Amino acid sequence: MTFNEQIIHKINYKTKPLGALGQLEDLAHQICKVQNTLSPCLLNPTIFLFAADHGIANEGVSAYPQEVTWQMVMNILGQGAGVNVFANQHKIALKVVDAGVNKEFGKVDGLIDKKVGMGTKSFLREKAMTRQEMIQCISNGKNLINEYLKNTECNILGFGEMGIANTSSASMLMHFFTDIPLEMCVGKGTGLDEQQLLRKLDVLEKSKALHALAKDDVEVILQTFGGFEILTMLGAMLESFAQNKLIMIDGFIASAAFLGALKLNPSILENAIFCHQSNECGHALVLNYLNVKPLLKLDLRLGEGSGCALAYSLIESAVNMMNNMASFEDAQVSNKSE
Amino acid sequence: MTFNEQIIHKINYKTKPLGALGQLEDLAHQICKVQNTLSPCLLNPTIFLFAADHGIANEGVSAYPQEVTWQMVMNILGQGAGVNVFANQHKIALKVVDAGVNKEFGKVDGLIDKKVGMGTKSFLREKAMTRQEMIQCISNGKNLINEYLKNTECNILGFGEMGIANTSSASMLMHFFTDIPLEMCVGKGTGLDEQQLLRKLDVLEKSKALHALAKDDVEVILQTFGGFEILTMLGAMLESFAQNKLIMIDGFIASAAFLGALKLNPSILENAIFCHQSNECGHALVLNYLNVKPLLKLDLRLGEGSGCALAYSLIESAVNMMNNMASFEDAQVSNKSE
Repeated sequence: MTFNEQIIHKINYKTKPLGALGQLEDLAHQICKVQNTLSPCLLNPTIFLFAADHGIANEGVSAYPQEVTWQMVMNILGQGAGVNVFANQHKIALKVVDAGVNKEFGKVDGLIDKKVGMGTKSFLREKAMTRQEMIQCISNGKNLINEYLKNTECNILGFGEMGIANTSSASMLMHFFTDIPLEMCVGKGTGLDEQQLLRKLDVLEKSKALHALAKDDVEVILQTFGGFEILTMLGAMLESFAQNKLIMIDGFIASAAFLGALKLNPSILENAIFCHQSNECGHALVLNYLNVKPLLKLDLRLGEGSGCALAYSLIESAVNMMNNMASFEDAQVSNKSE
Repeated sequence: MTFNEQIIHKINYKTKPLGALGQLEDLAHQICKVQNTLSPCLLNPTIFLFAADHGIANEGVSAYPQEVTWQMVMNILGQGAGVNVFANQHKIALKVVDAGVNKEFGKVDGLIDKKVGMGTKSFLREKAMTRQEMIQCISNGKNLINEYLKNTECNILGFGEMGIANTSSASMLMHFFTDIPLEMCVGKGTGLDEQQLLRKLDVLEKSKALHALAKDDVEVILQTFGGFEILTMLGAMLESFAQNKLIMIDGFIASAAFLGALKLNPSILENAIFCHQSNECGHALVLNYLNVKPLLKLDLRLGEGSGCALAYSLIESAVNMMNNMASFEDAQVSNKSE
């Protein structure tokens, strides 16, 4: 038997009807392949949460004012946010990174300083960042993961974000990386009404017209429409893949970062676990474009990596199934095929 | 503010965009209502797993032989089944009940003896059980829960089942209790092929014609098409509701038991949490009929209460959100509406 056949055999001879654990079986299969073992394990699950501000926030595309970014960073550091609650529930380590929030935090316990600037520029008027800043973000993300993995035996990483107006950035990246029409990539974010949504779409259409980019110039697209937190996350994803870790993908913004990472290294899909399908309308289209099935569909639209934390227990279940569930032979149960 | 408004207020002022935790917010709301508190809790979660055999198994409606029921009971008692793995993961107590398996177990550690008979009769030929047996099952289920709750401070119960051919019984109950055409209530169970599915449907159509029951005679329907495990579960659900506990509903068979319980006490819906949507085709229709959204859609079709165990962590998350997540005021984060 090939190794792949051995995985299938082990799953099929667990004491259950063939395929009866549905998506958990596919997930177990994927994890075995990534870890190259029939007895997978999860070690020190960790979520890195990247925060940054966006110049486009000042163009009337968001329901919340920009200062909510730093206020929420403080709330997360104080254990008060959704992701804290769910990460603590599952004993997932949470690392909070300032990738470019528009606030001088000074020294704050628990906040990792990878600030590239005080937020991006408005891409309605100019490129969001310089080429140098774009390179710096990706490099910061890679270094952060590389350092972390030197000191921590971790084999599964999730990525979250906080950044007022970052659905606008994510929508632009999604449009350029998938070729899906822009209006299908734009949604209500954290809670725009219909009129505000039309304004957001108008701002993004104008931004697109201003820059007139080619679809295949990945780096220029990232520089023009990216956010500091999105690109730092992208670098972190690439490094996690380079070190063959499992990568938990959260919602719409994390998926936009993932699309960028995928352009730079298409193999990264092998290690990616799509934790949930967000209520943000473009997300279902991204998942469909990637031809992947999310673990959860709970109409979440919180970000922060909260979907990774919520889905983690299902990933554990897939691993536990492989290790702890009896086979027909172990249990002396009659199989259908016998 | 009414109590209901207080619940909504507490959820809406958590540090997240309005509605951003989607279905978890609805679930938190439901749990607060059931427990009549703004600070809900989950105590000693427990799954009762009822096993029994079905006379209809001998009419060629199942992919597995009947002895798999008792073999799987032994596997479950030996901690080898799917539900063991997932219940252990979440520290959920699992109680295994012989409601009518076609096997003399003798004394077996951990197996609760509520045997009503050595399996039901084939409803292709006669009623599955006597009226006395039907009453006995429901009473057994009620007594079991009543006894358990005297000794254990538990406020959330899930119910699972094991019984070769019990999708046939569940399909008949679903058809009579929802009025959905029989062919839409019948699926492949644990893995029939197309031809076997046609045979199953034929057997069930003939069974329906034989008995010619009125839709509103709930007890006769239960007696004619029920299973010992399904009716014992139904009794257990009714008693759990009578004692105002949260009730986790698993897949297709548990939902058929729930439909029966609902006929006997429509208020039970208030306490029911629908853990997942099974891959068995009728289940989506039952959930739609009840106008409820399941927590998981993972194409599971294992039964055993495995879906309750897998979804439990999301129920915990909803409770943790209410208790541990900061409000805008706590965290001094600007709210949209301010």
